[in-house]
Amino acid sequence: MPTPFRFSSATRDLIELALHEDLSLGDVTADAIFADDATIGAAFLAKEPLVVAGIPIVREVMRQVDPEATFAWSVRDGAAITPGQFGTVHGRVRSLLRAERVMLNFLRHMSGVATITKRYVAALGPNGPKLVDTRKTTPGFRELEKYAVRLGGGHNHRYNLGSGAMIKDNHIAAAGSIADAVAKVRAYAPFLTRIEVEVTTLDELRAALEAGADAVLLDNMSTETMREACAIVAGRAIVEASGNITESRLAELRDVGLDIVSSGAITHSAPNVDISLDFFADH
Amino acid sequence: MPTPFRFSSATRDLIELALHEDLSLGDVTADAIFADDATIGAAFLAKEPLVVAGIPIVREVMRQVDPEATFAWSVRDGAAITPGQFGTVHGRVRSLLRAERVMLNFLRHMSGVATITKRYVAALGPNGPKLVDTRKTTPGFRELEKYAVRLGGGHNHRYNLGSGAMIKDNHIAAAGSIADAVAKVRAYAPFLTRIEVEVTTLDELRAALEAGADAVLLDNMSTETMREACAIVAGRAIVEASGNITESRLAELRDVGLDIVSSGAITHSAPNVDISLDFFADH
Amino acid sequence: MPTPFRFSSATRDLIELALHEDLSLGDVTADAIFADDATIGAAFLAKEPLVVAGIPIVREVMRQVDPEATFAWSVRDGAAITPGQFGTVHGRVRSLLRAERVMLNFLRHMSGVATITKRYVAALGPNGPKLVDTRKTTPGFRELEKYAVRLGGGHNHRYNLGSGAMIKDNHIAAAGSIADAVAKVRAYAPFLTRIEVEVTTLDELRAALEAGADAVLLDNMSTETMREACAIVAGRAIVEASGNITESRLAELRDVGLDIVSSGAITHSAPNVDISLDFFADH
Amino acid sequence: MPTPFRFSSATRDLIELALHEDLSLGDVTADAIFADDATIGAAFLAKEPLVVAGIPIVREVMRQVDPEATFAWSVRDGAAITPGQFGTVHGRVRSLLRAERVMLNFLRHMSGVATITKRYVAALGPNGPKLVDTRKTTPGFRELEKYAVRLGGGHNHRYNLGSGAMIKDNHIAAAGSIADAVAKVRAYAPFLTRIEVEVTTLDELRAALEAGADAVLLDNMSTETMREACAIVAGRAIVEASGNITESRLAELRDVGLDIVSSGAITHSAPNVDISLDFFADH
Amino acid sequence: MPTPFRFSSATRDLIELALHEDLSLGDVTADAIFADDATIGAAFLAKEPLVVAGIPIVREVMRQVDPEATFAWSVRDGAAITPGQFGTVHGRVRSLLRAERVMLNFLRHMSGVATITKRYVAALGPNGPKLVDTRKTTPGFRELEKYAVRLGGGHNHRYNLGSGAMIKDNHIAAAGSIADAVAKVRAYAPFLTRIEVEVTTLDELRAALEAGADAVLLDNMSTETMREACAIVAGRAIVEASGNITESRLAELRDVGLDIVSSGAITHSAPNVDISLDFFADH
Amino acid sequence: MPTPFRFSSATRDLIELALHEDLSLGDVTADAIFADDATIGAAFLAKEPLVVAGIPIVREVMRQVDPEATFAWSVRDGAAITPGQFGTVHGRVRSLLRAERVMLNFLRHMSGVATITKRYVAALGPNGPKLVDTRKTTPGFRELEKYAVRLGGGHNHRYNLGSGAMIKDNHIAAAGSIADAVAKVRAYAPFLTRIEVEVTTLDELRAALEAGADAVLLDNMSTETMREACAIVAGRAIVEASGNITESRLAELRDVGLDIVSSGAITHSAPNVDISLDFFADH
Repeated sequence: MPTPFRFSSATRDLIELALHEDLSLGDVTADAIFADDATIGAAFLAKEPLVVAGIPIVREVMRQVDPEATFAWSVRDGAAITPGQFGTVHGRVRSLLRAERVMLNFLRHMSGVATITKRYVAALGPNGPKLVDTRKTTPGFRELEKYAVRLGGGHNHRYNLGSGAMIKDNHIAAAGSIADAVAKVRAYAPFLTRIEVEVTTLDELRAALEAGADAVLLDNMSTETMREACAIVAGRAIVEASGNITESRLAELRDVGLDIVSSGAITHSAPNVDISLDFFADH
Repeated sequence: MPTPFRFSSATRDLIELALHEDLSLGDVTADAIFADDATIGAAFLAKEPLVVAGIPIVREVMRQVDPEATFAWSVRDGAAITPGQFGTVHGRVRSLLRAERVMLNFLRHMSGVATITKRYVAALGPNGPKLVDTRKTTPGFRELEKYAVRLGGGHNHRYNLGSGAMIKDNHIAAAGSIADAVAKVRAYAPFLTRIEVEVTTLDELRAALEAGADAVLLDNMSTETMREACAIVAGRAIVEASGNITESRLAELRDVGLDIVSSGAITHSAPNVDISLDFFADH
Repeated sequence: MPTPFRFSSATRDLIELALHEDLSLGDVTADAIFADDATIGAAFLAKEPLVVAGIPIVREVMRQVDPEATFAWSVRDGAAITPGQFGTVHGRVRSLLRAERVMLNFLRHMSGVATITKRYVAALGPNGPKLVDTRKTTPGFRELEKYAVRLGGGHNHRYNLGSGAMIKDNHIAAAGSIADAVAKVRAYAPFLTRIEVEVTTLDELRAALEAGADAVLLDNMSTETMREACAIVAGRAIVEASGNITESRLAELRDVGLDIVSSGAITHSAPNVDISLDFFADH
Repeated sequence: MPTPFRFSSATRDLIELALHEDLSLGDVTADAIFADDATIGAAFLAKEPLVVAGIPIVREVMRQVDPEATFAWSVRDGAAITPGQFGTVHGRVRSLLRAERVMLNFLRHMSGVATITKRYVAALGPNGPKLVDTRKTTPGFRELEKYAVRLGGGHNHRYNLGSGAMIKDNHIAAAGSIADAVAKVRAYAPFLTRIEVEVTTLDELRAALEAGADAVLLDNMSTETMREACAIVAGRAIVEASGNITESRLAELRDVGLDIVSSGAITHSAPNVDISLDFFADH
Repeated sequence: MPTPFRFSSATRDLIELALHEDLSLGDVTADAIFADDATIGAAFLAKEPLVVAGIPIVREVMRQVDPEATFAWSVRDGAAITPGQFGTVHGRVRSLLRAERVMLNFLRHMSGVATITKRYVAALGPNGPKLVDTRKTTPGFRELEKYAVRLGGGHNHRYNLGSGAMIKDNHIAAAGSIADAVAKVRAYAPFLTRIEVEVTTLDELRAALEAGADAVLLDNMSTETMREACAIVAGRAIVEASGNITESRLAELRDVGLDIVSSGAITHSAPNVDISLDFFADH
Repeated sequence: MPTPFRFSSATRDLIELALHEDLSLGDVTADAIFADDATIGAAFLAKEPLVVAGIPIVREVMRQVDPEATFAWSVRDGAAITPGQFGTVHGRVRSLLRAERVMLNFLRHMSGVATITKRYVAALGPNGPKLVDTRKTTPGFRELEKYAVRLGGGHNHRYNLGSGAMIKDNHIAAAGSIADAVAKVRAYAPFLTRIEVEVTTLDELRAALEAGADAVLLDNMSTETMREACAIVAGRAIVEASGNITESRLAELRDVGLDIVSSGAITHSAPNVDISLDFFADH
């Protein structure tokens, strides 16, 4: 049974943009050589260990090019695989060649995000804080990258500026105090929205707790200060650490008492993983 | 005099998608706190040495949010800068906060591409082959990434499947021979389009030259074989090397005789550079 | 200083749809009679007491038709006004006639929502529960109607299916128990998202509280049962009442102990208020 | 045999907007709880007597979310039904929950328009004037609401500013006289377009008839004046009454001699009718 | 004072499509050679006598490319001019070169339609039937071509399938008779819509008149039969002739008694007129 | 097996625009008369000899209106046929009538382009220069018209401003010389892009050859000068003739030594060919 494509229409638009930029002038090579009804098969081949992410996108790319091509997958999104073939596609040669690069560009990027996420999650340990993403995503890819983060074992921070409140220094300065800022947001935001306050000192932390913040973001603190902060919070709010979170530092954040560690690098700087589409010699 | 935004409408659509994903529910924090007419200034701050790429995009993002915000830049796209402030924006607080993350997500990615490109170009040396990009770009970003590659001193390969012909093994197999494939494409493609043939052996190379290929792509060859290939070509075609082109290998490709070295990593795996938007304390 | 239009691009698309449906064939009457450069003024006239909502939409409608028309308003959105003129527009006759009906259709509907909301809010009293809207909005108008609800003194429930979690009977049946459902959502949803559980009995209410629900929705309960429910909750969760909330019943819900009363009727069944655009006799 | 969806592309765009506003962030509750392949059935349940309007829209909403869901209907659009189940849908739980609210928001509004229309039509009697709608429709819904009016037994006035000419006081003032205005429009408008003149006095009425108007709109006249007007027209033009047409007044307009009575309220102020989607307990 | 662009959003979309197809890969020649701030002037030059049509479209094309370019026109749309310069544009070289071809492609086609229309209108004489267009327009250009027809002195037939009723043989066969067909359409169509019946014999003509058709279309009749038909109609309906209307036959249709002669060729087969954009040598 | 539609998304958008302009108000005639499930068949009938072009577009138009209609074709695109039926369509009457005019408008125009192209190609003879199109295409139709040109036996010039470099007098003036202009473009343009220089004199021709131009365009030269030019080029570049290429002059260009003759008239001024859709009497 085919998995339905249920990402938002915005993602369909992104796929359409991506296909159009590659196909706006047709495919002068393939159109010159292949008959319209020539068919072929090809295999998706992982060339390194990776977490697969993007199969529904690959299907949608292909569907927009030619809905009659068919897929067979040996894994599902989220599978951690070793090098080798993990899926095949059959259809018209011209169609497969038109979709090939766009399918791979999505799949290699999304699987790259899932793969690095899995590594970060492992570094934080099974009992450590949750790893979450940020709003530092590739423009247009928020839905896709947040999905890939979940496939890699990470969790999602607020989706956008409207689905969670985050009070920063600017807001506090304008409101007059942390307490006033929290009160104003509480009065304005939908009541199912939690409020987080970004703090850089322990005094600010105390003010945020007093103001009733649902969560606090410890910004660019040393590990020792974080530990102290967690002790002060003592379960009264969710504690997130952010800023200067390199991969090598993750291990030391395991048992600091944090609930959440957030990283922008897992989305905005994840290198592509190596996946190719190998056409079958005989068909 | 403001630089006009002349990227294609597809790029405007991508920006619209990116703004919509961050703003589809408004900004619950800022809308709760700031008056609609409160204004502020902020500075774009490079936190590491980098090549700036994306100023027209930043302007367009801001324009879509609020056309009355104004910019002042101390550099232009393509400038290699040291850490520090390189531009400012003034306008409504709500507008700047709405545009902030999307502006930075574009600017940090595009400048990341330009910056790594400049490093690769330097590694190839002033008299070495040209560095070019590939079609392995972030979906939707082809125009932007190819522009960033040029800003970093690189050059562009064909834009898409229709603006240059590239004959690969599949095409050859279907056509019967390299000669037949080249002849078919020559008969079909617009006459201002050059034809490149991908080869993996020196025999294939000779066949491509004989067939009148305008360019040849040496795929995954050792440096020694490449040198031999260049000697065989002897100026009869443009010679491009691709596959397995790591940064550390670039130096040894300087004087092999290649015209072109292509790299997908400069677009698909360029890490973001660190740029922030710092709001002024007083305003 | 003109108020910038900062609703989302989706709302701009809705306005474009609305203009297109009225103007797809031009205006055969005005185009036959008026010179292209004939200008005129007109006044927005309230014909009954109402809360104004939609001025930025009116401006955007006019801007899409003819950006050179100008407005003068004596009030801002949210003002409760008595019958009379509250704003004027000047510009080309053809442009004003093209925009007239679409401007009024938006303004009369949105002001209708704000006006009925204000009446409901008043009925709940100054110390009673907050009035909030629902997802039962006119398709395409969620942003506009939720904005109008705020202008009328109401508050907003979650914006959509992704910006707040609401567990209903189906979810509970599938998860096995209220506790399991809450746990699953807690593990999945972004951590700034609160979780609400819909309950129809006091036993379900107790289970929801035990499961750590952030909010509970009392569905279709009698006022007496609601009072009992509020006593059971005792501040451990936000309490919302929904279902069968008619205008006449609001007064008796004032002091039941509820935090929130939600109503779909204020958005989906708000009658238009009477506003016309009166062209000046002389100009 | 499934009924094809043949509304215009603008209506498909409206549905896409409506789905996007509800689903732009996914469905955090259902996605956390239901397996992707879990299926269920649900019934559309009328909770009051109503005229069904919107089945093709409901189908298109569902199709955009998940084309594999299937429907069974016991009635067709336009059926006047008593409370009870009138259709079912089967498919993936996640898909049904994503489409549920948008399907109902369309169906309840459109059926609301059809239902009130039927009541107005009945009040005008079997031999009375025809009831028609106006351009006072919900922005973006003109096609849908005019369709619902027809289902309720009403008729449609001109679709938009270009598909019929309506001469009002402004046009007359600019043209110099009713005769000049009619002549100008006659010379300009497509020849299959009829011309209607809005009149507020019997003198204007006579001038309109003399000018050869195809139809006259009696604006805000008393019932007695209307009767006199109809006598003057004596079949030389179609006679429409508009302005101040409340439901309670319809009966007295039955035998005045009018051809047409128009009402904006049936589209812009029709309250939703109560329809729910009830999921089956066992499936 | 600049003339505002008030064509529909669909026409703006067509212009965007047209620009995108020419500019999707930038302008590799101009971008290589001209500085971004280099400016130039150019003149629109008619190389044959023609009727100008399309100035607002030319402006909109330019605006979409670069809103800072400025125009000066010595004529307005609809002017019949002799060869020579009739307008100028100044702005950035890159922008003018990007817009040049698309501006001319629209202007030459639309002026071609206006020019042939003027010739046809002249052939029908000052007291002859009106010349009208058909629905045989270039897809996407209906608004533009119907506008050009008016500029050339022609008139417009119904805009589309919904803005006028045209009963043909298929409809009659399905309805059972001409009378039944007319009655059904009369009951269904908006009351400001006229009904035309296509007839091929005088018997059908008589049936159409009896059925109360507002207009009749004489399809492919000889001139003599047309004359007879007009006598039969005797002012009871508008009489249109269509089919086999070549330019050379127009003169003989002058005094047959027809009200309307329709031609598809003036829109679908109008050859481009010769207009170029000549860049100034010095600037 | 149905031929898939693989034109770009821009062409799908054009089709959507074309359908919307004809169907935005429905079809008042057919909707009044035909039952929703009434079906019929119809035949595409060529009324003159022609080259068929546009079958996939016809299919896509129909698919957008009603995907359940089916086609049977006795020829494929590119077939040169004599008058008679060459395909049929079956489906709902309402759907066929809605799609009819738009299908024919595309088919008649595209077949017109293919037909005139075939005539021009024949005039150039089997051993003469290739006939190519230009960028003087109907806005929005570049993909379709270039496809039709190929079907008629012609070839395509560069698709747009970015897929081939064409240096004209403006570029040369700005660059300083032909040599400088060619060098700048060579350094900037993607390396698979050829460079053509437009020349009006033999001196310019020699400069272009010296500068290494890949192709030269002889602009508005006499046949004798062209012959001289070809002798000078002597195979060092592709030689194209353009400007003042009337149909009657083609024969004399057969053996001048040209590689390419380009014509704008085959796209921008091709008259429609006569094709109708004839509904079957019985069904």
